[in-house]
Amino acid sequence: MDPRVTFPWTYSERAARLTSSAIREILKVTQCPDVISFAGGLPSPDGFPVEAIRTAFDRVLVREGNVALQYGPTEGYAPLRAWVAEDLNRRGGHFSPDEVLIVSGSQQGLDLLGKVLIDPGSRVLVEAPSYLGALQSFSLYQPEFVLAPSDERGLLPDALDDQMAAGARFLYVLPNFQNPTGRTLDRVRREALVSRAARLTLPIIEDDPYGDLRYAGAPEPGIYTLAQAAGACVIRLGSFSKVLAPGLRLGYIAAPRELVAKLVQAKQATDLHTATLTQMAVHEIVQDDLLSRHLPVIQNLYRRQCEIMLTALDDHFPKSAQWTRPEGGMFIWVTLPKNVDATELLGRAVQRQVAFVPGAPFYALQPQTNTLRLSFATVSESKIKEGIRRLADIL
Amino acid sequence: MDPRVTFPWTYSERAARLTSSAIREILKVTQCPDVISFAGGLPSPDGFPVEAIRTAFDRVLVREGNVALQYGPTEGYAPLRAWVAEDLNRRGGHFSPDEVLIVSGSQQGLDLLGKVLIDPGSRVLVEAPSYLGALQSFSLYQPEFVLAPSDERGLLPDALDDQMAAGARFLYVLPNFQNPTGRTLDRVRREALVSRAARLTLPIIEDDPYGDLRYAGAPEPGIYTLAQAAGACVIRLGSFSKVLAPGLRLGYIAAPRELVAKLVQAKQATDLHTATLTQMAVHEIVQDDLLSRHLPVIQNLYRRQCEIMLTALDDHFPKSAQWTRPEGGMFIWVTLPKNVDATELLGRAVQRQVAFVPGAPFYALQPQTNTLRLSFATVSESKIKEGIRRLADIL
Repeated sequence: MDPRVTFPWTYSERAARLTSSAIREILKVTQCPDVISFAGGLPSPDGFPVEAIRTAFDRVLVREGNVALQYGPTEGYAPLRAWVAEDLNRRGGHFSPDEVLIVSGSQQGLDLLGKVLIDPGSRVLVEAPSYLGALQSFSLYQPEFVLAPSDERGLLPDALDDQMAAGARFLYVLPNFQNPTGRTLDRVRREALVSRAARLTLPIIEDDPYGDLRYAGAPEPGIYTLAQAAGACVIRLGSFSKVLAPGLRLGYIAAPRELVAKLVQAKQATDLHTATLTQMAVHEIVQDDLLSRHLPVIQNLYRRQCEIMLTALDDHFPKSAQWTRPEGGMFIWVTLPKNVDATELLGRAVQRQVAFVPGAPFYALQPQTNTLRLSFATVSESKIKEGIRRLADIL
Repeated sequence: MDPRVTFPWTYSERAARLTSSAIREILKVTQCPDVISFAGGLPSPDGFPVEAIRTAFDRVLVREGNVALQYGPTEGYAPLRAWVAEDLNRRGGHFSPDEVLIVSGSQQGLDLLGKVLIDPGSRVLVEAPSYLGALQSFSLYQPEFVLAPSDERGLLPDALDDQMAAGARFLYVLPNFQNPTGRTLDRVRREALVSRAARLTLPIIEDDPYGDLRYAGAPEPGIYTLAQAAGACVIRLGSFSKVLAPGLRLGYIAAPRELVAKLVQAKQATDLHTATLTQMAVHEIVQDDLLSRHLPVIQNLYRRQCEIMLTALDDHFPKSAQWTRPEGGMFIWVTLPKNVDATELLGRAVQRQVAFVPGAPFYALQPQTNTLRLSFATVSESKIKEGIRRLADIL
């Protein structure tokens, strides 16, 4: 349209909160092939089971094309909902299939939860730092963010008190290989957390896109597995993006029936339902137990790349810097000396053709500007070494 | 989870507006095979080009699997955005590819527009009746609905005045074979509408999922094609659901660049982006010009079924009832004598194994309870005749 035609739009107050976002800019930086980018949150395409996915789509279209291409129920494809419930229950959960809602990626789960649980000014408890995409989703519903206290091992359950929880709609937590820090909450703290949340009647949203990407140490129990015994309420968000492929946009919410019913109504108004064909193809894959054969491929890939990055950090980074040593997932979190501004550092890094994400945007409040996130998932071994060397030079 | 564990949820005020919806209940009724259902809004699966879709997914996964399965830009797959802009411009539009946002079905377009344009209490102008899904989407953002005056031929542009438009965020209109009435706005009114909207600085949302399903009469120009000359602002919503297949969940918004930028930010927080694989497969189909070969199949199917239903109505329905004679799309709208309540009628119809949708839920305000919607799209010829006969008996 003619840009000269200027029209007096009136945006919603909500929209005024939208600004060109960090994730978006990150995705752009990572597309420039000359840059060694540790900035991406993208999984490695080397881990995509392309042939299995191709076979699954083909089988579904041959066998049930007319069903796969038709409108479907908002709740999701029933066999996939049943599979998700079974999978969670095998790990210690207590969900029935009608307590599972299939969503278009767990990012949509975050949006729907914001939609049905947050009013302007509602208190929402988040980790510091936390997943940027969740902060963005929730922000549109204008909550009052409150930082849940934590230390270098994650959330401090005992620091959650009545005053902090008063009127809070929920606590949002990523317990496994957190984005952005790579930190994992240990079992003792998970148990303390559900007890405390039960006492405070504080619902917990457990967002766990990375849990299956563990390549070191022993698995911790999902927070949802501890909920029932403690009398706590846990809303579980899961994703097929990191274990299969993100471009499919498929995830789920598992939650008490009453909340799922509300979320279904919200999803119906939001996009009617998630693509039927995609749900059926993914069900085809998971029921063949492809995930358990496929996951080691991704785990081995990320273990190796994580080790190389940690070694490069040990070899080259100054002793004044600290970093996390993740047991899974895609991210390492670096804390620089207090006086170093990571955003300013990024400017100099990009000149040397290397990129990362400054840590500040991951904080809902009180940004720590001396932090940064490194992803090793999509970078080759030699480039990891070279990129870390360049960053160390700049430091 | 144990239903005995009752947790004191606090829902948002927004969520309190969500109720078990009519569309949802409709989808359930249509799934019972014994009922002759004119209630569905589903397109006929006989019109799905299953083989072409199968070939397209396969080609994309073979050729560019790693791209198709990776995260992609929020704006959408660039070649598909370019195709949408070209397609609109071939029909008289003025869009550049960066004025197109790909969405997960046009229902998502409605949600995103509500998100960035509606504050609680904002005035939103809608037709009476209008698409139920749009009313639901917008409702969540708590607007004040105002009915735009209309007669049996649709909107009355001259009745839109300063008082009505004061502070209105937009006018929402379905100009072609409207859901639910099947009505089409003629050229004279479209031209009057853009002039009037320009004078009132009232943005128009033109939602057109059915425009390509014309099987009688001559095409009317898209409202977006008239916008620039009149100095009006038109936001165009389109969908692949009715011309390809709804289960893919793919549509688009074409709008001025500034608004698209805001919508992109909102979509990022909502679901990051629409499935890359689906976008690439649909691009594969449309660039092969399959749509122009495939559309006559759907048009012929619906023309025939519409004619049969109209003939059955002429033959059996009482003279005291009136109905629309659509030139395209999937719906006929029946107005019964004032004293007949269509919801009460549905109760009796279901006992006779025939279903339709009462008209009342399609009104944002002042429901006309003596109206109902009939869809002929998914019903066989003999069942259309039998179903209309049964309804006539009850009347």
